[in-house]
Amino acid sequence: MIVVMKAGATAAEIGAVVSRVEAIGLNPHPIVGTERTVVAVVGDERPVDPESFQVMAGVEKVMIVLHPFKLASRDTKSENTVISLNGTQIGGPRLVLMAGPCSVEDRQQLMETAFAVKEAGATILRGGAYKPRTSPYSFQGLGLKGLELLAEAREATGLRIVTEVMTPEAVPLVSQYADILQLGARNMQNYGLLHAVGEAQKPVLLKRGMMSTVEELLMSAEYILSHGNYRVMLCERGIRTFERYTRNTFDLSAVPVLKQLSHLPVIADPSHGTGRWELVASMSKAAVAAGADGLIIEVHPHPEQAVSDGAQSLKPEKFAALVTELRRVAQAVDRTL
Amino acid sequence: MIVVMKAGATAAEIGAVVSRVEAIGLNPHPIVGTERTVVAVVGDERPVDPESFQVMAGVEKVMIVLHPFKLASRDTKSENTVISLNGTQIGGPRLVLMAGPCSVEDRQQLMETAFAVKEAGATILRGGAYKPRTSPYSFQGLGLKGLELLAEAREATGLRIVTEVMTPEAVPLVSQYADILQLGARNMQNYGLLHAVGEAQKPVLLKRGMMSTVEELLMSAEYILSHGNYRVMLCERGIRTFERYTRNTFDLSAVPVLKQLSHLPVIADPSHGTGRWELVASMSKAAVAAGADGLIIEVHPHPEQAVSDGAQSLKPEKFAALVTELRRVAQAVDRTL
Amino acid sequence: MIVVMKAGATAAEIGAVVSRVEAIGLNPHPIVGTERTVVAVVGDERPVDPESFQVMAGVEKVMIVLHPFKLASRDTKSENTVISLNGTQIGGPRLVLMAGPCSVEDRQQLMETAFAVKEAGATILRGGAYKPRTSPYSFQGLGLKGLELLAEAREATGLRIVTEVMTPEAVPLVSQYADILQLGARNMQNYGLLHAVGEAQKPVLLKRGMMSTVEELLMSAEYILSHGNYRVMLCERGIRTFERYTRNTFDLSAVPVLKQLSHLPVIADPSHGTGRWELVASMSKAAVAAGADGLIIEVHPHPEQAVSDGAQSLKPEKFAALVTELRRVAQAVDRTL
Amino acid sequence: MIVVMKAGATAAEIGAVVSRVEAIGLNPHPIVGTERTVVAVVGDERPVDPESFQVMAGVEKVMIVLHPFKLASRDTKSENTVISLNGTQIGGPRLVLMAGPCSVEDRQQLMETAFAVKEAGATILRGGAYKPRTSPYSFQGLGLKGLELLAEAREATGLRIVTEVMTPEAVPLVSQYADILQLGARNMQNYGLLHAVGEAQKPVLLKRGMMSTVEELLMSAEYILSHGNYRVMLCERGIRTFERYTRNTFDLSAVPVLKQLSHLPVIADPSHGTGRWELVASMSKAAVAAGADGLIIEVHPHPEQAVSDGAQSLKPEKFAALVTELRRVAQAVDRTL
Repeated sequence: MIVVMKAGATAAEIGAVVSRVEAIGLNPHPIVGTERTVVAVVGDERPVDPESFQVMAGVEKVMIVLHPFKLASRDTKSENTVISLNGTQIGGPRLVLMAGPCSVEDRQQLMETAFAVKEAGATILRGGAYKPRTSPYSFQGLGLKGLELLAEAREATGLRIVTEVMTPEAVPLVSQYADILQLGARNMQNYGLLHAVGEAQKPVLLKRGMMSTVEELLMSAEYILSHGNYRVMLCERGIRTFERYTRNTFDLSAVPVLKQLSHLPVIADPSHGTGRWELVASMSKAAVAAGADGLIIEVHPHPEQAVSDGAQSLKPEKFAALVTELRRVAQAVDRTL
Repeated sequence: MIVVMKAGATAAEIGAVVSRVEAIGLNPHPIVGTERTVVAVVGDERPVDPESFQVMAGVEKVMIVLHPFKLASRDTKSENTVISLNGTQIGGPRLVLMAGPCSVEDRQQLMETAFAVKEAGATILRGGAYKPRTSPYSFQGLGLKGLELLAEAREATGLRIVTEVMTPEAVPLVSQYADILQLGARNMQNYGLLHAVGEAQKPVLLKRGMMSTVEELLMSAEYILSHGNYRVMLCERGIRTFERYTRNTFDLSAVPVLKQLSHLPVIADPSHGTGRWELVASMSKAAVAAGADGLIIEVHPHPEQAVSDGAQSLKPEKFAALVTELRRVAQAVDRTL
Repeated sequence: MIVVMKAGATAAEIGAVVSRVEAIGLNPHPIVGTERTVVAVVGDERPVDPESFQVMAGVEKVMIVLHPFKLASRDTKSENTVISLNGTQIGGPRLVLMAGPCSVEDRQQLMETAFAVKEAGATILRGGAYKPRTSPYSFQGLGLKGLELLAEAREATGLRIVTEVMTPEAVPLVSQYADILQLGARNMQNYGLLHAVGEAQKPVLLKRGMMSTVEELLMSAEYILSHGNYRVMLCERGIRTFERYTRNTFDLSAVPVLKQLSHLPVIADPSHGTGRWELVASMSKAAVAAGADGLIIEVHPHPEQAVSDGAQSLKPEKFAALVTELRRVAQAVDRTL
Repeated sequence: MIVVMKAGATAAEIGAVVSRVEAIGLNPHPIVGTERTVVAVVGDERPVDPESFQVMAGVEKVMIVLHPFKLASRDTKSENTVISLNGTQIGGPRLVLMAGPCSVEDRQQLMETAFAVKEAGATILRGGAYKPRTSPYSFQGLGLKGLELLAEAREATGLRIVTEVMTPEAVPLVSQYADILQLGARNMQNYGLLHAVGEAQKPVLLKRGMMSTVEELLMSAEYILSHGNYRVMLCERGIRTFERYTRNTFDLSAVPVLKQLSHLPVIADPSHGTGRWELVASMSKAAVAAGADGLIIEVHPHPEQAVSDGAQSLKPEKFAALVTELRRVAQAVDRTL
């Protein structure tokens, strides 16, 4: 941490900062510059709130040196984290395909999709039993019935299940049915929920908030890891920008950035990332080429009848065709599928 | 709703859209243009998911005509909503001042601040008992003890209490102590929590998400209103943009925009909106001039010792001086304080 | 400047950075931390390209300490810059009102507007002779004829003229007619144009780019100042964000921020800043309350006939009414109008 | 175009809109809805300024139906545009590699880089003779000398030359030396420059502004096309967002979106797009997988000595290694290199 004093800060003001650093057990190094003085702080700055220095008289700004995340950092653990899940490995050399409908609507829709995606090469089935909707007038999800249908689909196909859990109190119930707990973009900083999934000790698919930096994503992962739950996978699903043509801007550079900063597996979601089914194929291939450890793609047998996200869902035949293309791209970057 | 067909859409494709509109009980009006055909849809489009049309063959895009919010809209209720709270009125001609520390830290800090802000003219005391923090290594809040201290402060000063509730299960407890439930920016689309505060039937201070549009803010308000809880006040507290000098960009135009679109009171939060105490004074005055119904400002007797948000907190004497200036600005725009 | 080394950087790598700092004539201070080493650099870092260190082996990141602008900084000149213009003073205690149509369309329109805004209290007339339009199919401006009409209006009313210059080669011509050269938002980093207006030695109204940080705005001002042209006024006119309801997000916090960082006068443009005439009044009052030194507002006698920006233009009578309200707000913040 | 009237708009107000539509030669279709009336407008709306309707009494909003670009649209020309350049084809099945230093610094640097990139597989050499820099204290470019060196490099290697032209008056000179004129991100809406390169009739590499939508990029292309210069290639080079870890956010979804909307070739610039050399490899592969027609990559023999953009430049050996990997990815998506 570097505390930059204002031009013209007094000796007393600088002294107060130095004293404070010592008082919290860190090591101050004042450096007198040509225009201003800075106080470099040696020691683990992470528990310190930079603002506690920002407000001191004579302080211009405080700059953070260390990454605020520790457990999630590759500085702490240099080898990739690999999450094993009954045969499937996430974060290993083999790419993971998670696919399924946005919402679980009924048995027919779910089974048809499950068999189709399994056939195409997916090992994990996605489907929402509880839906976050922006309008109180929209479909809210089947709830428990949806979870039961997902378990049926697992029974019938052998696919693992990833589904979203929306509230802390739902975590125990959803944990009984799901293999992976999905924490949605809007809940990335829902600390009650992060706490609950940390305690649940189930693998977690943590989606990046649409307005979250990669650092904030890693801090949310840190929150879960700090409970001793190391089975966290990060997911890029698009961020909000000024661009209007796509619902979100799919930030693919987050893939290599996260792989560089952290040992956790990185999954890409081109369905939410683009919001348009015609863009899912190219962005899926791009994500594989960029180094993602897996993809999560929305598939629906009849998108025009989908109760949610129909515009970004692929028909099963399109999904199967895409997987064929993905195998070729994976091979070109020394991954398998 | 307007369904725009692709250039070259076939008669069959257009027919399918027309049939679908009729099937859901609305009224289709196809209009053949020089370059493409559009199908205008008459009737209440709000329960319809535009995507269900977006995915149909031949459809280029779907444009929404009506505001998706209804209960919150001034089209539904043209007079301002005024929320009464034991003497204080929010949304009336008199501006409301809510002030207090970011976090409740201890009795001394809270009482000192409470008396100071009351003296200066505030009628509502803010203070967090539960804190959402981006790092698992930071202060989490006093919890129940914090709520008890807030109640003590109310007892001693007569100030009403606004405090943040973080999870649905905490709503009953917090409701026992608070006069106004604050729903934080990160929880603006936490549907479990919106549902719970809707049921609680307590006044709600709904903060705009840092990444939310004004329309999304109004849809979250709609969610609460749809439970029959009409005592909702909207709060602008800054949005996330590319600018780095301030933590958030304080979107003051949201004040007149929300007053235009909705009948609900609009509160401005210049503390979070700017993140810097030296900007709070000017932005408070600007908010009053812009037409806000009230302000919520962070005040701390010793900001350099604050466990959270010290950099944006005002010292009591500065707050008192600001209130004096605010009275003058209020008068200049025909409001009182 | 602080060079942060990677965790595990070798002694040789650190040594190379130290040597480089010395080679460019600055003073290195290596500080060994618990997790990594930083090299603090003492001396004027401004001519140094941080990237030249960023690329060195073992370097994690480079952090800038000093503001990159110097001449524009209040550290260099603490008193406000006041620009005198035949009777009008910009940056002094008296607020300045600049008003007029977006585009000069014809003599009738310009004269009618000029007399109206002068009557209401404006001292500077705005009007575009050359228009930047996003579509090649839109009005491009009257060119020289427009400049002549502006000069006529000055002759008839005594108002000073501010008009946009679009290209370096147009600067000499426009300088003959205008009292203030306006450099549009899209040209804020057009270095050929910044250079030309710097050489022209005319007062400049420098508009913040819709995607520019306040620091970048100040660097563009720096560019002009470095030519010895000190008569530069900064203008906030809205930035681009994810919000869709308004064309731009009017960043009013830029007003106090710029007044804090720089001695240059700060003008606010609520017309472009909001894009909607119904928001201009409230945002104008807010800007005055926020501490702006002046306003630039679009006024048109018949906005529905305007060839450009009609939606944000005020009718003369509305402008006059607004000025009356502005006087009251100005008084409330110890300014005059 | 759809004109949406306010709820409660009067018959007279609706009539005025209808009359206006007819007056400008288009065809009005009023549709009375349950909550409000809309007037659908049939005919080519492109020359109409929507604001001229926005300002009319009783109008709530105006919605645009047709894409505002025409010549650039795939609706106008369905086959891909292929630009031939002395042996190289841009927009054809073969991917194009443009590579070279950010700035031309001296003969040694340029020649060394030119031979290296040619060897690796590039067919076009990039290098800036004129640099846009955010600080007046930074390197401004070699100017004419730089152009001459580029011509020398072409002579020696057979590579074609792409270089940035900064001002309209420089277009004739730069056209003498360059095979492709590059129009930089900051100049994407510099209409004087767009006009000049349109007249120059040279191939143009048009970079997307860092804060421009894809629609605005296509409108700038439209501007050039409207001069009869059809040899325009679009370039995605990153947009500005709230994310701080990378200088820009590389918007790779713009690649398939532009290929869908327009027939013009699409080039990707992963160097500026990420700002970090370690991300260039993965993003280059991703861009190829996403369907880009080519790449433009910064290469420098000694990035730590580069006067500009060193942090994002690749060393020649890294570039050569990347090209090998790109061939594999290209093959996997049925392109050649």
